[in-house]
Amino acid sequence: MALFYGAARAVIYLCPMTSILKIGGNVLASPELLAQALQYFISLPSPAILVHGGGKEASQLATQLGIVPKMVDGRRITDAPTLKVVTMVYAGLVNKRLVAQLQALGCNAIGLSGADGNLIRAHQRPVGIIDYGFAGDIDIINTQTLTSLLSAGLSPVCCAITHNQRGQLLNTNADTIASTLAQALAPTTEVSLQYCFEKAGVLKDADKDDSVIPFLPYSHYQQLKEKGNIHSGMIPKLDNAFAALQAGAQEVIIGNIDSFMQHVATQLK
Amino acid sequence: MALFYGAARAVIYLCPMTSILKIGGNVLASPELLAQALQYFISLPSPAILVHGGGKEASQLATQLGIVPKMVDGRRITDAPTLKVVTMVYAGLVNKRLVAQLQALGCNAIGLSGADGNLIRAHQRPVGIIDYGFAGDIDIINTQTLTSLLSAGLSPVCCAITHNQRGQLLNTNADTIASTLAQALAPTTEVSLQYCFEKAGVLKDADKDDSVIPFLPYSHYQQLKEKGNIHSGMIPKLDNAFAALQAGAQEVIIGNIDSFMQHVATQLK
Repeated sequence: MALFYGAARAVIYLCPMTSILKIGGNVLASPELLAQALQYFISLPSPAILVHGGGKEASQLATQLGIVPKMVDGRRITDAPTLKVVTMVYAGLVNKRLVAQLQALGCNAIGLSGADGNLIRAHQRPVGIIDYGFAGDIDIINTQTLTSLLSAGLSPVCCAITHNQRGQLLNTNADTIASTLAQALAPTTEVSLQYCFEKAGVLKDADKDDSVIPFLPYSHYQQLKEKGNIHSGMIPKLDNAFAALQAGAQEVIIGNIDSFMQHVATQLK
Repeated sequence: MALFYGAARAVIYLCPMTSILKIGGNVLASPELLAQALQYFISLPSPAILVHGGGKEASQLATQLGIVPKMVDGRRITDAPTLKVVTMVYAGLVNKRLVAQLQALGCNAIGLSGADGNLIRAHQRPVGIIDYGFAGDIDIINTQTLTSLLSAGLSPVCCAITHNQRGQLLNTNADTIASTLAQALAPTTEVSLQYCFEKAGVLKDADKDDSVIPFLPYSHYQQLKEKGNIHSGMIPKLDNAFAALQAGAQEVIIGNIDSFMQHVATQLK
C-alpha cells in the first residue's frame, strides 16, 4: 500500500477525521471484494463518504443496447445515449445497490448524484482535440449540503454523475469527485482520502504486485513519472491525490482491499 | 378536477401545509406536461415532496433488452432482470433528470429511493395467486430522515423503489408511496396529497373528460364502485386517497396538470 502523508500528520485532531473512500471498478464487479470494501467502509470512524463509478456495468449495458463504448485514455466519450446509460447505471443500479447493502449493515447511507442538493456543479468539458460529449469538469462542491447530511448522521454515497445547474446531467470521473470532495472539506476538517482499487498500491513496476512504493513524496512522483515508471491511468489518479494533499488533506491512501485491511490491523496493534 | 376534503378543512394552519405531488406516467412521458408539472411543483409552498415512477420508460428499456414486460391489473411482475431495469430507470434516469430540472428552476431537490436514509422500508409481497416477484409492500416511513431533509431546505424527489433493510431493493407502487408518505406525516403536519395524471379528475364515465366528479365523499365512492362507474386502475388510486384522508391528511386532489393550474388560478382570485 502506498501512503501519502501531508505535512500535518502529527497534529492532534480537534474534530473527527472525515474519510472519503473511493472504490474502483474491479471492487464493484466482485461481490466478495465489494462486501469486504463495505465492511471496511463501515469500520471507518464517521463521518465517512463513499464514492463510486460503475464503468464496467455501464459498458455492459451500453453493449447490450447496441451502443459501442468509446474510451480515450481511460475516459469515456459520453454522447447522449451513453449519458442515459451511465446515469442509469451509476446513479440507479450501482448507487442504490450500495446504499441498500450499507443499510443492511446498519450504516445510514444516502445515495447522491451531484444534482442532488446541488452537491456538485460542473460544466461540460469544452471541445478540444477530443469531444468528450457530456463529460463534466467540476466547478464547485456545495459543502453546505454535505455538512447538513453529515450532521444528520447520514453517510453520503456519491456516484460519478454531476450537473451544470441548468438542467444538464454530466458524466464526471469518480477519482476526481473524491479528490474534489477532499479539497472542499480540507479547509474546515481533517480529511483522509482513500482510493481502493485492484492494485496493492502505487507500483514501481505495474506488473509486479510486490513493487509497492510505501511512501511517495511529490518530488519522487515527478521523477518516477519522468522515467516512465508511473504511467497511463495512474497519472490522473496520483494528480488527484496530490491535489487533495496540496489543498490540505491529511493523507491519501492508495491500495487494494487487502492492503486497507492490513493497514487497519497494523494501526490496531 | 376532483377534490377530496378531510373533516378538518376549516382549521387555521399552525404550520405550513406539506404538499405531496405524485406525477403519473403520461406526465413524465411528455416534456411539455412535465415542464408544466415542475413549474406547478415549485409554485407550491414549501415543504413539498415529489413522487414519481417511470413505468413507460422502464417498459421501453426492458423491451430493448429483450425482457417482456409482464403486468397484472396494472401492476408489474418484477423478476430479477426487471428489478434491475426499474432501479435504473426510476432511481437513475427519471429521478436524476427530475432533480436536475428542478435544480435548474432554483428548487433544492434531492432524489431518494426508499433505501436512501432508510426512508421507506418494505417487505417483498408474499406469493399468492400471483407471484409479483420483487414487489414491495410498505412497512414504515422514516419520518426522521424526511424531517431532517425538509428542515435542511431540501425538496425530496421520491422514486418508486424501496428496500427491506436486509439489502434487497423492491419495486413499489408510486401512488402507494405518495399516500403512505401522507399518512406518515399527517399526525404532525397538515398534508395535501395531490395525484397529477392524464385525466381531468375522477370521471363518472372514463371516456368522457367532462364527467368529472368535483367532490367525492367516501360513501359516494363506495356506491360508484359497486355500480361499476369507477373501476380498474382508479380503484387502488382512490383507495390510496381515502387511506391518506383516513390517517388525517387535509385534502387529496386528483386531476391533470390543466386542472391543477386552474385550481391555483381559482385560489388566487
